[in-house]
Amino acid sequence: MEFDLIERIRQRAASRREDVLLGIGDDAALLQPPPGHVLAVALDTLLEGVHFPVATAPADIGYKALAVNLSDLAAMGATPAWALMSLSLPHSEQRFVDRLLDGFMELAAPYRLALVGGDTVRGPLAVSVTVHGLVPDGQALRRSGARPGDAVFVTGTLGDAAAGLACLDHARVDADRLLGAAPESRRKLVARLNRPEPRIAAGQMLRGIATACIDVSDGLVADLGHLCAASGVGAHVDADALPLSSSLLTLFAGQARDLGLAGGDDYELCFTAPAERAGALVADLARMGCGATRIGRIVEGDAVIVKDAAGKAMKLPSSGWDHFR
Amino acid sequence: MEFDLIERIRQRAASRREDVLLGIGDDAALLQPPPGHVLAVALDTLLEGVHFPVATAPADIGYKALAVNLSDLAAMGATPAWALMSLSLPHSEQRFVDRLLDGFMELAAPYRLALVGGDTVRGPLAVSVTVHGLVPDGQALRRSGARPGDAVFVTGTLGDAAAGLACLDHARVDADRLLGAAPESRRKLVARLNRPEPRIAAGQMLRGIATACIDVSDGLVADLGHLCAASGVGAHVDADALPLSSSLLTLFAGQARDLGLAGGDDYELCFTAPAERAGALVADLARMGCGATRIGRIVEGDAVIVKDAAGKAMKLPSSGWDHFR
Repeated sequence: MEFDLIERIRQRAASRREDVLLGIGDDAALLQPPPGHVLAVALDTLLEGVHFPVATAPADIGYKALAVNLSDLAAMGATPAWALMSLSLPHSEQRFVDRLLDGFMELAAPYRLALVGGDTVRGPLAVSVTVHGLVPDGQALRRSGARPGDAVFVTGTLGDAAAGLACLDHARVDADRLLGAAPESRRKLVARLNRPEPRIAAGQMLRGIATACIDVSDGLVADLGHLCAASGVGAHVDADALPLSSSLLTLFAGQARDLGLAGGDDYELCFTAPAERAGALVADLARMGCGATRIGRIVEGDAVIVKDAAGKAMKLPSSGWDHFR
Repeated sequence: MEFDLIERIRQRAASRREDVLLGIGDDAALLQPPPGHVLAVALDTLLEGVHFPVATAPADIGYKALAVNLSDLAAMGATPAWALMSLSLPHSEQRFVDRLLDGFMELAAPYRLALVGGDTVRGPLAVSVTVHGLVPDGQALRRSGARPGDAVFVTGTLGDAAAGLACLDHARVDADRLLGAAPESRRKLVARLNRPEPRIAAGQMLRGIATACIDVSDGLVADLGHLCAASGVGAHVDADALPLSSSLLTLFAGQARDLGLAGGDDYELCFTAPAERAGALVADLARMGCGATRIGRIVEGDAVIVKDAAGKAMKLPSSGWDHFR
C-alpha cells in the first residue's frame, strides 16, 4: 500500500519547473539551483494534538504544514522553489491523503512550488516538510542585523491564531458568546489558526531594507527576543501600538493585548529597519496588500520590554510557545 | 526546554564548510551550491517500532537515520553535503539527545556533512532527516537507464539486516543456538541492522558506468523490481549467485537465500552496467574495499524472475517491506 500512496502523491505532484530534473520516484530528487543565488532551507514538523488540534480537516493540515515552512522562507526574503514531505499516517486512506494534498497544493500552486520527494510511514498523524527557497547572493534577511535606533515592525495582526485555538476549546471560553454572537469573527480567527498566510511577498520586498527579520511562530515577545538575542540588542515595544484585529477585539476584548504579545502561530513577520524609512516602508507594504505596523524600537541591552500607554514596563504574559513545556 | 535542545544541537552541529553561509539558529539555513553541480535531495523518516526496534540504542538511531538517507544519495552517485533533522521525542532528555547526535555525527564526520537545521517536537520517538548531495551536471545515477543485455550487480551481502532483526526477536528464533553458539555472527548481523554502511564511494565510482542504480531498502526482489519498472525492462536473477555472508549462513542456513532475496534494510546498491564491463567493474569495486557480485541480467519484459541452479523460476518469498502492510 505504501507504494500506491507514493504513486498517488507522485501523480498529484507533477511539476513543470525546468529546475526539477527528477521529481518523486527515484532514490532522491535532482534539482538545478540557478547561478547567483543561495539556497534557504527549512524543515518543520506538525504533529496532531501538538501543532494542530485533533480533528483538524485534512486539507487544513496539508495547507498548514507547508505554510509554516514557507513562513520560514518569508523571514529570509526567499522565493519558494521545492519541497519534500514525510507523511506519517495511522491509516492508509486515499481520501484523507487526497484532501491533505488538496490543501498543500492550494498553497503551493501560486508559488509554482514543486513537491519533489519524501516518504510515507504508518504512525501517528504527522507531516514533516522540507522547503527550499532561492535568494539572490548576499540579499538574504537574517535575525542578526538589528541595531539600536532601528524601528520594530510587524505585518498583519497578532493574537488571532491563539484566539482561534481558544475558540475551538469550548471548555475554556464562553461558548454562547463565541458560537452565537459573532460567528463571522469566530470563523476568521479559526481560519488564522488553520490557514496562516506566509508573508512571502513582504519578505522579498524587505530585502536590502530590513536589518533583521523573524516570523512570529512562538509569540511576538518570544520571537522578538530571539531576534534581539541574535542581534545583541534589546527592544522596547509600545503595547498600545500592537495591531489587533476587530475579530479579536470583538471576542476577546479583555485578553486581546496579552494574546497579541504572547500568542503563537500567527506567522506574521517581525522585522527591524532604520527609523527614517518607517513611513515609506509601511506605505509600500500597504500597497502590496500587507498591513505593517511600527510597534517599537531597538535599544542597547538584551531585554524585550513592553510599555503601556504611560510608558511603564508591563508584566509580560507567559513567554511563548514551548513544545516541551 | 525546546530552545535548550535546539541550542544543544546547534553547538554540536558547528561546521566549517564554506558553503554553509548560515547553519542552525535562524528561520532557515543558507547554503551556497557550487556551480556545475545538481542537488540530490532525499527525506526519510525512521519511527520507533517500525524502522528500528523499540529499545534500540540512541546512538544507533541517530546513525541509522542518517545512513538510510545517505544510502539514497549513494544510489544517485552523489557526494553528501548538508542535512536537516526533525526530532520527535517523548521526553526531553539531554543524554538521550547527546547519544543520538553521537551516532549521527559519527557517520556525518568522514563525509564532512553539515547538520544545518531542523526542529524538535514532543511526540513518539521518530527522526526525519533531509539530506542534500552534489553531483556534477549530467552524471547522476538513476533507476531508469537499464537496458536488455546489461548485467545486474549488487554490492556487499544481502539478507544480513533482516537476519539481525530476527536475532533480536527471541520469540521467532532458536534462542539457544543464536545467543549461545555463534555470538560473533549474531553481533555482526545485528550491526548490519543498526549500523548500515551507505555505499557512497561505490555510488560515486559508478557515475558514467552504471546504467541504473537503486539502494536495497525494501529487499532485492522488490527494489530490483522498482529499477526494472523505471527502466521498462525485466530481470533474471541467479539465486545461486546471491552474495550471502558467512554469519548469515552460520545462523540461518535454511532461510539464507530467502532472506537475501526479500530481506529489507541492507542498504547495498543494486545496479546495472553493460555486461562487457562486468569483470573490470567488480575488480575496481573490490580494490575500493566494496565487494560486488554479478547476480543476473536485464531482459525484455517487466518481471523479475529468480532462477535456481537448474535454471527453473523459483517461487518468491514475500515481496519486500511495506510499512502499510
